[in-house]
Amino acid sequence: MVKKTEMNPKSKLREIGLNLVNYIKKGENPFLDIPIRALSNVIFDPHTNLIKMGDKTAKRYLFNVAHIRKFVQTIDAAAISKRLLEENKHVSLRQVYYMMKGTLSGSGVEVVSDGDEGQTESNKAVEDLELITGLTREQLNINAKKLGSVAGKVIIEDGGDTIDWSKQGSGGWSVPSNVENIKFKKVNAKFVLYMEKDAIWERLNEDKVWNKLDCVIIASQGQATRGIRRLLQRMSDELRLPIYVLADFDPWGFYIYSVLKFGSIALSHISDRLAIPKAHYLGLTADDVEKYELTKYVIKFKDVDIKRLKEVSEYEWFKNRKEWQRQFQLMNKIKGKVELDALVTKGVSFISEKYIPEKIKSVDVLN
Amino acid sequence: MVKKTEMNPKSKLREIGLNLVNYIKKGENPFLDIPIRALSNVIFDPHTNLIKMGDKTAKRYLFNVAHIRKFVQTIDAAAISKRLLEENKHVSLRQVYYMMKGTLSGSGVEVVSDGDEGQTESNKAVEDLELITGLTREQLNINAKKLGSVAGKVIIEDGGDTIDWSKQGSGGWSVPSNVENIKFKKVNAKFVLYMEKDAIWERLNEDKVWNKLDCVIIASQGQATRGIRRLLQRMSDELRLPIYVLADFDPWGFYIYSVLKFGSIALSHISDRLAIPKAHYLGLTADDVEKYELTKYVIKFKDVDIKRLKEVSEYEWFKNRKEWQRQFQLMNKIKGKVELDALVTKGVSFISEKYIPEKIKSVDVLN
Repeated sequence: MVKKTEMNPKSKLREIGLNLVNYIKKGENPFLDIPIRALSNVIFDPHTNLIKMGDKTAKRYLFNVAHIRKFVQTIDAAAISKRLLEENKHVSLRQVYYMMKGTLSGSGVEVVSDGDEGQTESNKAVEDLELITGLTREQLNINAKKLGSVAGKVIIEDGGDTIDWSKQGSGGWSVPSNVENIKFKKVNAKFVLYMEKDAIWERLNEDKVWNKLDCVIIASQGQATRGIRRLLQRMSDELRLPIYVLADFDPWGFYIYSVLKFGSIALSHISDRLAIPKAHYLGLTADDVEKYELTKYVIKFKDVDIKRLKEVSEYEWFKNRKEWQRQFQLMNKIKGKVELDALVTKGVSFISEKYIPEKIKSVDVLN
Repeated sequence: MVKKTEMNPKSKLREIGLNLVNYIKKGENPFLDIPIRALSNVIFDPHTNLIKMGDKTAKRYLFNVAHIRKFVQTIDAAAISKRLLEENKHVSLRQVYYMMKGTLSGSGVEVVSDGDEGQTESNKAVEDLELITGLTREQLNINAKKLGSVAGKVIIEDGGDTIDWSKQGSGGWSVPSNVENIKFKKVNAKFVLYMEKDAIWERLNEDKVWNKLDCVIIASQGQATRGIRRLLQRMSDELRLPIYVLADFDPWGFYIYSVLKFGSIALSHISDRLAIPKAHYLGLTADDVEKYELTKYVIKFKDVDIKRLKEVSEYEWFKNRKEWQRQFQLMNKIKGKVELDALVTKGVSFISEKYIPEKIKSVDVLN
């Protein structure tokens, strides 16, 4: 199983490099031990409640015509990361692609292909580097997507600035792609509310929910970015704050919760650094649809929704969770989804004044 | 031509309502005069450099079976907006859809249809309300998409908070969907840099470009949101700051610039409140590709790119701009695009230390 490295990233990269040099000095064929990225090597660990990568690895050799291209790409990614760590600068995956494209110029050999194919190659090289080092690309100074806003009763320090999340007006603080260097300075929040939709976040921020309920509100449009997942995880682990996930009543809302809590198959190798096993579901349930008289606002399922519901309900990590299975069954009966936005029909601030405070009291049911 | 209203939104809505009541009192068929949303009613005004809506209007009557549904939807949108203005609260278009869905319950008549069709209807009703009132939906307390980050030498006041854009760490301040109520308190910036990509923004922010060059940096992923466009416009109009647009060398980058500067056909009725006629292009040009030796990083055009280039080059507002026509021709020769990200091959901070300072000196050429 891929273990998260506590070693400092520069030392870890140095260690990998020295290993390769040693093979060369001994006249051996240098190789990298790379955990296998395949469904067959992904497991759900019921003890930690995390989707994790198993312990199968494959050797990748320098002197092997089938391996050498990927070998060089991975080492080039390591060299780029080392340079970034030394310069104390960060770049994006797209920028890494360009940096790799330039590397062996002059030799006549291109490290990566042109266009989309080359981007896929350099992305994989960075992922391989994560696998080999046990570090996230963020720790290797390679940033992911930037998205999302946060507001609430927390003061942080970041890049030399002290930032009070409770004094950010209507916009909030913009969550960076990389949250590794944020320091929590003062925490007056009792919990964290994560939501999928910016429009809900703006509604809650306008009502200053975070002030009334002493909490933090955070959102990114759609699936949570890595930056947001890691920030939530840090607030769960380091600040011991409960993380509540506000999602729509539909298979996609449930899936958002699933990824936040248990991790995902695609990023199973870094669940340790992204997943939040203590997350609670605070989104709409079949019971809420009845309780808050939302039946009128049910949007009928399309075939794709029914298919998705089946898939989600069969995930190993939901199998033994009775209350979730009950929700899946009820959703299957309703055969439709209900959005949090529909709560606006009960009053513009109903979600802030009624729904959230009421739900939090009964939050232990679904997790 | 739709004129922007300087009247306060509540008074404007009241005026429209009173007009309708007067028709009813006089026993006449109430109607709304709605500017026609069609390409035939969109003009480019070479004096203001704006794409604007023409002065063709159509009457929409209450007592007309072909009109009544849309008539009621538009009035319902007005009623919802009035309520929001009175409560001093904002909602999204999705939330307006739900609020409209509930309105005539009991009468057996649904104001809007179910699902996507209903969403289209309520969206159109809000757009019609913009057309009738000469106000933007933001002024009517109906918010658009929230996206983007800003950092730099400006201090604002928003929602009772004083926010210093130069003390926002690695994240920046998150731009709200609605920037109408932001007050500029202190401005030490000499210009504004807008860019399409968050990854470029993060690069520039890490290099603290805004500190070295005394400016503001602002980005939203993809096409600029209405909130960002309006914020840029306000900085251009109220603060008299030059707005520089950093875009890729491709038809889509040129189009981003075109929308920011001249407005767009889809939102031609509110160009007055969104477009920035004084914007300058600071993105990559054919000359830059040569000067910075980026030929190696040209990504070959697909058919769709060639088609888009032709379309953009034929826009009326580009027709008499010689320097732009020269760029279109050169791009047509290169038959490929070059991304700003490719500058990273010259050094991680090349864009901050060389490209931007050099370009600003020669910025008057392309606008």
